Amino acid sequence: MSQYGSAVEYALHCLLYLVRSGQGMARSARDIAEFQELSTAYVAKLFTRLEKAGMVTATEGIRGGFHLTRAAGDISVLDVVDAVEGRKPLFECREVRVNCVLFEGKTPSWSGRGICGIHAVMLKADAAMRSSLAQSNLAELAAHVTEVVPKTHRKAAQDWFEERGHDRGKRRSRKNA
Amino acid sequence: MSQYGSAVEYALHCLLYLVRSGQGMARSARDIAEFQELSTAYVAKLFTRLEKAGMVTATEGIRGGFHLTRAAGDISVLDVVDAVEGRKPLFECREVRVNCVLFEGKTPSWSGRGICGIHAVMLKADAAMRSSLAQSNLAELAAHVTEVVPKTHRKAAQDWFEERGHDRGKRRSRKNA
Repeated sequence: MSQYGSAVEYALHCLLYLVRSGQGMARSARDIAEFQELSTAYVAKLFTRLEKAGMVTATEGIRGGFHLTRAAGDISVLDVVDAVEGRKPLFECREVRVNCVLFEGKTPSWSGRGICGIHAVMLKADAAMRSSLAQSNLAELAAHVTEVVPKTHRKAAQDWFEERGHDRGKRRSRKNA
Repeated sequence: MSQYGSAVEYALHCLLYLVRSGQGMARSARDIAEFQELSTAYVAKLFTRLEKAGMVTATEGIRGGFHLTRAAGDISVLDVVDAVEGRKPLFECREVRVNCVLFEGKTPSWSGRGICGIHAVMLKADAAMRSSLAQSNLAELAAHVTEVVPKTHRKAAQDWFEERGHDRGKRRSRKNA
């Protein structure tokens, strides 16, 4: 199994719909899920984690939904990874070094002192990976999407989300009539 | 689950016993396992992978066992990680971007063209991690062990392995007598 799986990928894709939606525009977890043909329950769960991490917040009402709590350029890929996966180390040290037939069950204090050399190498690699993920942010990812996705599709996507909002409004009006 | 687990940790610890054993000295997987109070079958399995990767080779006979095929300074932590875990990516891209309700089942060619921006960020972090692991080698790890492990324990360990070799020799002689 890889360190990061579908949750990170889906969360990043979902957040990009909030970047592209512009200022003051909120999108519902359901709309974002359906647009990408993903499970609504799963996407809702991801948004719960992102909200808990303070990255998104929800507004109530017909035109409500989630929106980013800070500028897309201030949300790094690492922020999203940690929000979704938790602070997951690259390597789990089992302190093999304290086991030795010569210790006869009485582990000397020096054997577990400081950090194991192998663990230290792994922590360094973990830091290199995290530092790399911290260097990318949602604004850059969104700019890349704008580059590769044709304008016509971006417009069609915008219209689809708008229409969903209107439909919700209509359904609500009928209900209240 | 972490990216790297006990197999990497155990393999590195085991290999360090071959670095410390000096030139021309071989150690059996069983002795290395028992010294660390690890399962012999598990350590044997790790050595099979390390041998397959060309990092160690076995010699037959009473004083036989595994030895490194190249200088410890030429075996990086990354080499060991790849030998034990296989070439495991940090992130598995599921190409979420090709799914969109607007495509109506007919995915346009542009949607999967090139590498997904999210995947690219992950590949960069993966490369940073691998580059970090490639910068450490068995010689450095062994030097760290020499620094932290008291001389008396290092001598006792050397004696233990020597004795095991002798015991095997005696058992073999009795068998052949």
